[in-house]
Amino acid sequence: MTPKHPVLFVGAGPGAADLLTLRALRAIESAEVLLHDSLVNQEVITLAPPTCRLVDVGKRGDGDAYPQGSTNALLAQYARAGHRVVRLKGGDPSLFGRVEEERRYLEERGVETITIPGVTAASAAAAQFSFSLTERDVSRRVLYLTGRAGGGAVCLPSAALLADAQTTLVLYMAAHVIGDIEAAVLRAGRDPRTPVLMIESAGAEEGRAWRGALAGLTDLVAQARARGPSLIVIGDVAAHARGVEDVAALVRQSAA
Amino acid sequence: MTPKHPVLFVGAGPGAADLLTLRALRAIESAEVLLHDSLVNQEVITLAPPTCRLVDVGKRGDGDAYPQGSTNALLAQYARAGHRVVRLKGGDPSLFGRVEEERRYLEERGVETITIPGVTAASAAAAQFSFSLTERDVSRRVLYLTGRAGGGAVCLPSAALLADAQTTLVLYMAAHVIGDIEAAVLRAGRDPRTPVLMIESAGAEEGRAWRGALAGLTDLVAQARARGPSLIVIGDVAAHARGVEDVAALVRQSAA
Repeated sequence: MTPKHPVLFVGAGPGAADLLTLRALRAIESAEVLLHDSLVNQEVITLAPPTCRLVDVGKRGDGDAYPQGSTNALLAQYARAGHRVVRLKGGDPSLFGRVEEERRYLEERGVETITIPGVTAASAAAAQFSFSLTERDVSRRVLYLTGRAGGGAVCLPSAALLADAQTTLVLYMAAHVIGDIEAAVLRAGRDPRTPVLMIESAGAEEGRAWRGALAGLTDLVAQARARGPSLIVIGDVAAHARGVEDVAALVRQSAA
Repeated sequence: MTPKHPVLFVGAGPGAADLLTLRALRAIESAEVLLHDSLVNQEVITLAPPTCRLVDVGKRGDGDAYPQGSTNALLAQYARAGHRVVRLKGGDPSLFGRVEEERRYLEERGVETITIPGVTAASAAAAQFSFSLTERDVSRRVLYLTGRAGGGAVCLPSAALLADAQTTLVLYMAAHVIGDIEAAVLRAGRDPRTPVLMIESAGAEEGRAWRGALAGLTDLVAQARARGPSLIVIGDVAAHARGVEDVAALVRQSAA
């Protein structure tokens, strides 16, 4: 049977419910089944109707995450049963959201899909801490990278991609490999004094940011002891961020 | 006198009013003065209250754009007069939005600012045409570039930044320098058959997209004859876009 409704891939935005788009809100409010990752803000999930079935595909009963194949199968199964299915992804589904795998699986089985974009964590972090990702004559470009690779191994781009002083680097899900990243960016020849930001829970009310220099990024990340999702920014634009703790203050605090 | 209200830098999103965030909508609905660029969707501007003073800083009476200095001065003047001022920017203010210049001008004069992020055109385009900006094992990274430079000259990054086949390139405001870009990316050694997309008015209902190959991108852009703002995507992820016209069809059409 052809499903009555397309599966909606919806960007949940970066953490605060009022950073959802109006289109995303409408989709969530009419969901009959909602599959979400563990990182999606609880406040966003509760916007679904009380009768909506919620499935946390980031966690199974035994504490492990669902394998991708199970998520794909669940999406197809609910859609074929005629439900309005929302697949909620943190931030923007098209950026490190692995939406392509789920979309392809569904379309090969005759299930249509529609994607609703969201505000990505980098945009939310820049807004929250009043800096710009690009800045005329300072940083003309921005490169979004992730520390999460297919097989769990670190996958760093070539030195040439990391070296350019006019490119802001934004690292998603990279705190666990930050030692490798700091070393690679320094080895590529970037100034050790380049300002960096470590941002926790970008966009959420409890979001915080720490500033330091590239040489020392690994220590900065360790000392920040972030519990929420982290985002790391490397580049001169970080110098202009407001409302952040600088690393010297942080060191004093942990020594006290 | 210290202004009563901070100036709000608000991301208008990529074109459709329902791609605004809830926070942005609330800011626009309580604006007393709204300064916007010419590219911001008219539908979004009309969400401001009927009593709100609208200023199109992209156009003066004589058809030219306001110089940046005038926009800065207007923002400070309205804020000091005690008004709730919204500075509306297309897409996300932190990405190619030149928000830093305005923010610094205001803060130096004791005017506080708050930024509200938005969905950027790249995310909207990916959602609208069902492709992903990053894709596991295909494109691990994405580089946002602009064709607009400080002095009007083309400013291209080094070949190394353009060469990596695992990096999706997204070009904002670059249609006018597309010949230089095609040449530079080819010279950097990227496969001439790399799929490319030329997207017009990403996110808007009238949004359209054309697909071709890197060798031929300049012709593709010329034949598309886009009237709305354009976005160009270079990378293997473009192969998976749906709902786009392929360039062969376009050539047939213009020959007919």
